Amino acid sequence: MSTRDRLVESTRELLRERGYTGTSPKAIQQRADAGQGSMYHHFAGKQDLALAAIERNNEEMTAVAERELSAPGTPYERIEAWLRREREILRGCPMGVLAQDPEIVGSDDLRSPVAGHFEWLRGRLRDVLAEGDLDVRLADTLMAVLQGGYVLARAANDTRPFEDAIEGAVGLLERAAAG
Amino acid sequence: MSTRDRLVESTRELLRERGYTGTSPKAIQQRADAGQGSMYHHFAGKQDLALAAIERNNEEMTAVAERELSAPGTPYERIEAWLRREREILRGCPMGVLAQDPEIVGSDDLRSPVAGHFEWLRGRLRDVLAEGDLDVRLADTLMAVLQGGYVLARAANDTRPFEDAIEGAVGLLERAAAG
Repeated sequence: MSTRDRLVESTRELLRERGYTGTSPKAIQQRADAGQGSMYHHFAGKQDLALAAIERNNEEMTAVAERELSAPGTPYERIEAWLRREREILRGCPMGVLAQDPEIVGSDDLRSPVAGHFEWLRGRLRDVLAEGDLDVRLADTLMAVLQGGYVLARAANDTRPFEDAIEGAVGLLERAAAG
Repeated sequence: MSTRDRLVESTRELLRERGYTGTSPKAIQQRADAGQGSMYHHFAGKQDLALAAIERNNEEMTAVAERELSAPGTPYERIEAWLRREREILRGCPMGVLAQDPEIVGSDDLRSPVAGHFEWLRGRLRDVLAEGDLDVRLADTLMAVLQGGYVLARAANDTRPFEDAIEGAVGLLERAAAG
């Protein structure tokens, strides 16, 4: 990996583990095994690093969700596959944890790319729901089940609340899809 | 308000606005208009203040939810009233924001009382769901819809994702309750 890539990957890890407020440029340098001069050669500072990390999160997460949502199968089956995908629950959602960080929510520059990912996902889910004649507001309901599932699991330090939240939602959706 | 109460209320506000990591003892003193000596007379430090703030959150939130969940009406109606209660959406859930704070999740002393509130709510919702012959795992689904709704609303800086998430969930629950 290039130094630039190591810096971006280290920033992604630290944002997920410690949030934006809890991540210092020095911690990023240490994690990436990069010097201060090298870091400032590639990035203007912590915000610039965070924007690159969010952009890479967005690319990866969009590609994974798109595979599930555009796979063969009924709308219900595609959404079920997306909901039930294995996730690193106790690490939290890479995007969701950022939406809870007061410094990110307080800065339009940092908040906008996080919002952009959820907007894309909302639109994509609404298309699939509409295809199945389901209430398109369920896009937000189902995204919220995932995001809130992470919150409850992290509070409990146990994956069970996440798993129960998903299975409860799948049951409701199945019933709605059956008409 | 007594100095002790002002310190606890100021801690509650700051935890909700800036998280645990982003809140300093100095900021609490300034918000409470209390001196350092006075703060350390009442509390051993930031963790002790946070524990008192979480305890007061818990008391208030438990009382409000209990009113809705033990009101007259069918299980569906009581859960609907709880879901649709007016909330200060863009400020985030006082408990949920703490479950996203890396320093709180990383400390069993701080995480446990947050987990305890959600455990109480889960048990209470499960009782009401069981009374209505509904899947008790929906307790976590519905708690997650609320917590995730806050996350999506804060990411978007707009209350709409929260509102859509709730209305989608109410529609699914109504259908399930109708049998």
